[in-house]
Amino acid sequence: MVETSPSDRTGPPPETHEAIMRATYRAFCAHGFAELTMRDIAEEFEKSRSLLHYHYETKQDLIVALLEYLLEEHPAKATIADIDDPETRLERFVDRGLFGPEDAAFDLWEFHAALLELRAHGHRNDAYREQLDRNVGFITDLVAETIREGIEAGCFRDVDPEATALFLHDAIDAARIRKITLGHDDAPRRTREAIETYVLSTLRTPVTES
Amino acid sequence: MVETSPSDRTGPPPETHEAIMRATYRAFCAHGFAELTMRDIAEEFEKSRSLLHYHYETKQDLIVALLEYLLEEHPAKATIADIDDPETRLERFVDRGLFGPEDAAFDLWEFHAALLELRAHGHRNDAYREQLDRNVGFITDLVAETIREGIEAGCFRDVDPEATALFLHDAIDAARIRKITLGHDDAPRRTREAIETYVLSTLRTPVTES
Repeated sequence: MVETSPSDRTGPPPETHEAIMRATYRAFCAHGFAELTMRDIAEEFEKSRSLLHYHYETKQDLIVALLEYLLEEHPAKATIADIDDPETRLERFVDRGLFGPEDAAFDLWEFHAALLELRAHGHRNDAYREQLDRNVGFITDLVAETIREGIEAGCFRDVDPEATALFLHDAIDAARIRKITLGHDDAPRRTREAIETYVLSTLRTPVTES
Repeated sequence: MVETSPSDRTGPPPETHEAIMRATYRAFCAHGFAELTMRDIAEEFEKSRSLLHYHYETKQDLIVALLEYLLEEHPAKATIADIDDPETRLERFVDRGLFGPEDAAFDLWEFHAALLELRAHGHRNDAYREQLDRNVGFITDLVAETIREGIEAGCFRDVDPEATALFLHDAIDAARIRKITLGHDDAPRRTREAIETYVLSTLRTPVTES
């Protein structure tokens, strides 16, 4: 498949990059992935269309750059920095994943709907798949690290941190997908309860037998 | 959105229906949802193209009929009929969901990839969404019923059967999606382990306190 390509002939200056990414984000949420065009993105961009085309040749370049940008700016990083207690931090990750950031200034569900379209189409495209995998790896690594800290601190049972992080990721992901695709608006809330019942309770329970 | 429409002016005879559904299934797996055309389906159909068009006017009619057909023929029904013990039956549901039926005579993963495309696109289309929701409801009802039987038989803890069934559905669904979209081929196996650690262990453990 096509490489991420020659956008790096200069690399836009930071404020232009930021403006392009915001335009791409808005267009992606509004149009979804499949029908999104360079023109849609250009229409969201305040500056000149030729500036956009100078830095990015294709829709694919822009979407991959957007996924990289969202990873760089990922709000989960702030969660790490703010909370010392691993148990509280893990709960915050789960809540953020299910309900979005508290200061949700964007439409979380439109974004996830567009992202699902990209995921459904992108698996035959190396550039999309690699970046999507990097984004999943980033968040599950943070969660696994939190679980590992909790185990070391003696507040969590000795489980496999990576497997548990992926299991939590998947539960959150599928609840969002049911909400988006089937209109199950209670899915995030009910999944939060199930994560408490099955995962968090188990993590907190010391093994008495051996 | 468009209703399931006038295909029921006669309803094809059973063997024709079966042949049309098999052709639709093969074309859906081979082409995915978004790019699938009536022509692709007609090419998989051994009989005359006009016969296909006589019974089904649009791709949407055919896809909705396929989802109904798969529900009618759902292999999970056989699981119910065969296994008395609720715990064994629940494990069988989980294994089937993650790894496919033992006699997998079709390409499970191509089907799930096409289905994911449909789900990502179909959420704005009432006919697709309703049928997809019915299919999820069918399998989660069977699983919830199994959990309820297990609680009554005293082999499972007194949990919420529906919430637990949805949680298991979601874990299985997301593992399949990671395998399809990110190439995480170990996702079903690792999810099976996590379901054992977190869900099945919890279900089997009687609450000792309170």
